[in-house]
Amino acid sequence: MKKTLNLIKIGGNIIDNETKLNQFLQEFSRIPGPKILIHGGGKTATEISGNLGLETTMVNGLRITDAETLRVVTMVYGGLINKNIVAKLQAEDCNAIGLTGADANLIPAAKRAAGKLDFGYAGDIIPGVIRGEKIAFFLENGFVPVFAPLTHDKAGSLLNTNADTIASALAIALSEQYETKLIYCFEKNGVLSDLENEESIIEELTMEKYRALKHEGTIVKGMLPKLDNAFKALLAGVNFVVICHAEAIGNMLVQDKKTGTELVNN
Amino acid sequence: MKKTLNLIKIGGNIIDNETKLNQFLQEFSRIPGPKILIHGGGKTATEISGNLGLETTMVNGLRITDAETLRVVTMVYGGLINKNIVAKLQAEDCNAIGLTGADANLIPAAKRAAGKLDFGYAGDIIPGVIRGEKIAFFLENGFVPVFAPLTHDKAGSLLNTNADTIASALAIALSEQYETKLIYCFEKNGVLSDLENEESIIEELTMEKYRALKHEGTIVKGMLPKLDNAFKALLAGVNFVVICHAEAIGNMLVQDKKTGTELVNN
Repeated sequence: MKKTLNLIKIGGNIIDNETKLNQFLQEFSRIPGPKILIHGGGKTATEISGNLGLETTMVNGLRITDAETLRVVTMVYGGLINKNIVAKLQAEDCNAIGLTGADANLIPAAKRAAGKLDFGYAGDIIPGVIRGEKIAFFLENGFVPVFAPLTHDKAGSLLNTNADTIASALAIALSEQYETKLIYCFEKNGVLSDLENEESIIEELTMEKYRALKHEGTIVKGMLPKLDNAFKALLAGVNFVVICHAEAIGNMLVQDKKTGTELVNN
Repeated sequence: MKKTLNLIKIGGNIIDNETKLNQFLQEFSRIPGPKILIHGGGKTATEISGNLGLETTMVNGLRITDAETLRVVTMVYGGLINKNIVAKLQAEDCNAIGLTGADANLIPAAKRAAGKLDFGYAGDIIPGVIRGEKIAFFLENGFVPVFAPLTHDKAGSLLNTNADTIASALAIALSEQYETKLIYCFEKNGVLSDLENEESIIEELTMEKYRALKHEGTIVKGMLPKLDNAFKALLAGVNFVVICHAEAIGNMLVQDKKTGTELVNN
């Protein structure tokens, strides 16, 4: 029987709130067995860009990453956020090691070709290119990888890559070695049928239902790319995909209670 | 017989010059066998601090690290410089992995107690606390560790630690497992008897001679803590300690030519 691996993506709004982040990291450190944390960027990169006199341009939730902005996200994602999370987890006796896709060439990517829009130094993960056994090596030796949302082009340049996408790609790559659970954590209780009502959690979501809810406008904006990444993982063989509140992580993975929105096959 | 391990510290002035840095990293990537790179901070942290409206205070070459400055050095050392070096080395097929002392708890340190001066979040490595076998694990599995000059207090906080000190402490910790060569690279040809003359290299330096040259004022300023760290390593059993020009690294370690200033026992 395969071991269970938990891959947990933690979103920006939690990262921006130190109290919530600390609470989440304490819960995360108690999850037994092999686990991976993938963190998003939060608002710090935008703040620091502003302080450095750079303008931030977002298109459909994606940051246009020119050379100067790449420097900022490298500093903030790969340094400030990543290494602080590592230090906090180490204080909880969780053997964290902070990584980007450049480290040990774990996540090679391709710079997105400029079309109508030029996203600059944005990296798209090449399907099938992540070697699960390289990451399993860290897990099997007792490390807890903490990934920043950065990849590289294997030609000397770092690239900015969406954390939801990294989480999905890592889960797919590791689904051969492990029974994989992919958990997208954020500041809401799950996918909601009414954005104003935190109790309106859709407990199970099939691809068919997702298409319908997207069509009727119930699921919108930032949730769409997240769900696209989440369904991609499910369809590629990841065993369990859920979208839930960051505060629910302990309930779900330590106490084994059902929470949030689970994605299910039709 | 023990394997040879090369530990190479690369100083700030090389890091600030992209052409020189690229050239150095190409040479570094060709060095055979296990190796570790330790990089300094360069001027970027000071520049970015300035751009963010922070004042930089240096005392005897050490940065006073208040909470805001710690954020900047974490970004710049742990993110910008470290991850760019990793990406550049990966482009040269050198299997770099970027690390701080917090990652995998590799370098625990103690926050320096405030005396007459409060250095803030400055970390002093506790003697004997680095476990060489933890770092040897990375080396024996084909990784090339690239260390940023950051440690942590194992209580959740990162700390700013001098890169020369980290290099010396790592070399000492690994001298049980390996025949260790510690090489301090910078923008000069070695320890000079006349600072104005790059040819005035002191080829061999004993502790006795060092004391005399310090006393007469021939060796001054930034070279003093570097030599103190270097002699500390030599006295603790590191097999070979040299101070040389960054450009000489290939000559010395690939082509086995003598270069720079070698520290020798009396």
